[in-house]
Amino acid sequence: MLASAIIANKRDGQKLSRAEIEFMIDGFVSAAVPDYQMSAWAMAVLCRGMDTREISDLTECMLNSGIRLQPATDRPRVDKHSTGGLGDKTSLVLAPLLACCDLDVPMLSGRGLGITGGTLDKLEAFSGYRCDLNATEIDQQLKSLGCVITGTTPEITPADRKLYSLRDVTATVPSIALITASIMSKKLAESLDALVLDVKFGSGAFMRDRVDAEQLAESLVSTGNQMHVPTQAIISDMNQPLGRMVGNACEVNESLDILRGAGPKETRDLTLHLCASLLVASGKVTRTQDALDLLVAKLDSGQALRRFQQMVEHQSGKFVDYLPLANESVFASPTNGRLMQFDGQLIGQAVIELGGGRRKLSDRIDHQVGLEMLARLGDTVSAGQPLIRIFARTNATRAVAEQLLLSAVSIAH
Amino acid sequence: MLASAIIANKRDGQKLSRAEIEFMIDGFVSAAVPDYQMSAWAMAVLCRGMDTREISDLTECMLNSGIRLQPATDRPRVDKHSTGGLGDKTSLVLAPLLACCDLDVPMLSGRGLGITGGTLDKLEAFSGYRCDLNATEIDQQLKSLGCVITGTTPEITPADRKLYSLRDVTATVPSIALITASIMSKKLAESLDALVLDVKFGSGAFMRDRVDAEQLAESLVSTGNQMHVPTQAIISDMNQPLGRMVGNACEVNESLDILRGAGPKETRDLTLHLCASLLVASGKVTRTQDALDLLVAKLDSGQALRRFQQMVEHQSGKFVDYLPLANESVFASPTNGRLMQFDGQLIGQAVIELGGGRRKLSDRIDHQVGLEMLARLGDTVSAGQPLIRIFARTNATRAVAEQLLLSAVSIAH
Repeated sequence: MLASAIIANKRDGQKLSRAEIEFMIDGFVSAAVPDYQMSAWAMAVLCRGMDTREISDLTECMLNSGIRLQPATDRPRVDKHSTGGLGDKTSLVLAPLLACCDLDVPMLSGRGLGITGGTLDKLEAFSGYRCDLNATEIDQQLKSLGCVITGTTPEITPADRKLYSLRDVTATVPSIALITASIMSKKLAESLDALVLDVKFGSGAFMRDRVDAEQLAESLVSTGNQMHVPTQAIISDMNQPLGRMVGNACEVNESLDILRGAGPKETRDLTLHLCASLLVASGKVTRTQDALDLLVAKLDSGQALRRFQQMVEHQSGKFVDYLPLANESVFASPTNGRLMQFDGQLIGQAVIELGGGRRKLSDRIDHQVGLEMLARLGDTVSAGQPLIRIFARTNATRAVAEQLLLSAVSIAH
Repeated sequence: MLASAIIANKRDGQKLSRAEIEFMIDGFVSAAVPDYQMSAWAMAVLCRGMDTREISDLTECMLNSGIRLQPATDRPRVDKHSTGGLGDKTSLVLAPLLACCDLDVPMLSGRGLGITGGTLDKLEAFSGYRCDLNATEIDQQLKSLGCVITGTTPEITPADRKLYSLRDVTATVPSIALITASIMSKKLAESLDALVLDVKFGSGAFMRDRVDAEQLAESLVSTGNQMHVPTQAIISDMNQPLGRMVGNACEVNESLDILRGAGPKETRDLTLHLCASLLVASGKVTRTQDALDLLVAKLDSGQALRRFQQMVEHQSGKFVDYLPLANESVFASPTNGRLMQFDGQLIGQAVIELGGGRRKLSDRIDHQVGLEMLARLGDTVSAGQPLIRIFARTNATRAVAEQLLLSAVSIAH
């Protein structure tokens, strides 16, 4: 088999066989297929697409490039994956909450890059929190706590790690096939019994259009099911940040509120909905309403918060009830009118400028900066009314963020 | 500017600016843009296409990556380029013939790869023939003889050389935009006053379909004209080899026949047609018929043959009137019927198996092997009638070639 012939087949719109896909992925990992062939192949895949069978084969080949975590207990193993968006902190609540319902949540998560935050960055707002657990440590923590949120280990889907770095610099990220294989190979390495996907669309998400999000959701779900993991997806609106807080410690504090049975309704509802799907899918509970009742009880009793604290401490983090934030100020409405639109890209950019996000993977994060949304789309606001609270480290970064927010907010008279 | 952003623009079907194209080409030559970005870009260009303005910009950027040959005399400078096909030996006759008509022909040519032969390989059938003249030597030979056929010098379009090697292994060869820029940048580096292109289609050509050949021809012509070189193209049929001979010394011998005013009508007619276009385009002659008369006179008088001999000798080749060929045998028709089809790919493959072509650029050529076509498409043939003469070095290679020819020939009863 020749890599150039396989690239040519995809270039010409042909379907690739399992053997051809395997040749490319295995060859890429072993460096028999050089970067320049892999990037041409990735662009051909992006331009010509792949069908469900090809995507499943690609996912499985990437999965097979590394190890799988093995079940640690008899409890059903479940996880959630979100395609990322502003203020999306549901993972922080979901893992300990489901662990309280006798599910194991072996959540391998990532860091933020660009405007979307990363769950690991948020948890590292607790000083000392470790995101580098090895397979044995993950296993042990699941046995004792039923939940873990840590980084992917180097032994898991090395093909994805290598391919993702290449896609990042060759403009081959936005391919349904490649995104599906990247997400699903990592999730399938967790050896799950059920998976729920939260596919975001809107100005603050990777996919701007609902139709694109639906396509991706369909591809993810069919790949998961084809690989025998009951998988479902919800499509959720990211035209404004989820809940109130955007930023690392900011979002942890909102999550702690949710874990106390309080917090913004929007964040709470989405989290409960995702958790309920997994409780039903794993067979723990039959009816969604029973699942919701169980979940609310775990929040109200304080069990979920305690489990979260145990998880943070088990991963060497110094737990506190409320994380300190940087100096706050208020961004006020420049005019009277109705709040019509938030530009999520600009809001995300403002968080990056404050120091709360990354332009490149090596950037350091300032956990204490961020934003608190004080108004929602559709609200009628008056000139001078506080719209967004800014937590900034310096006056200079605050000024840049304010400029971006001014452009980010559309108010109709 | 970021290479990944430029790749993304083309991926999304946008037109690239001159500055963006320049950034990619200059960056690739200086290695600031790595191979893996360039190959993803090339695949995006292949999949999404380029418009005439983009192709002209690409051509000019590639041209500007190296030097241009400067006019050596006051005579108009002309050249012909063929997209390659079986038995296409018109260059060998065209250059000296036009030189006899007071045109300068600074022909920078290439080697064969795959089923199409290379002009340089054919001329090297004359022992000692040099294909590595430098710019000064080219200049001197044009001054004294008006024609030269040699390889591209390293200073000419280095971008093309580097990009072509990459395209070859990343399945990004068959792009109208990239082919046009590759061909035209090299030809424009010759500083021509007129150019004619012979775009081949059919089973023995790179393009199988006439429509593809027409598209490429249109792209080549509009790019040449946009860059102020009067350019025209003819589309020619390559569903059977041109003339009788296929192979290196074989084709030189047929060319010598043409130069003596004899040889197969098909080869002679195509060559005269190409030469006449250039005589008219360069303003040397007004009417095509006058051009043809002049050309025939130069053949019949022996001047063209003498000029060819001088060119070979000036480039250190040992001229002979007839080049020796390998042992001959005959491939006979397996049946009675009408000759319906030649599979040019298999015929080309047979020549490669005989040792007359290359699978990879480092392969050595056996100049004395080849084929002589004894029948043409449409001929009625009978079982046992000689169809093709084989010039083979060994019985083993002859046997392989015979097998391929058996599959290559379609005879209808």
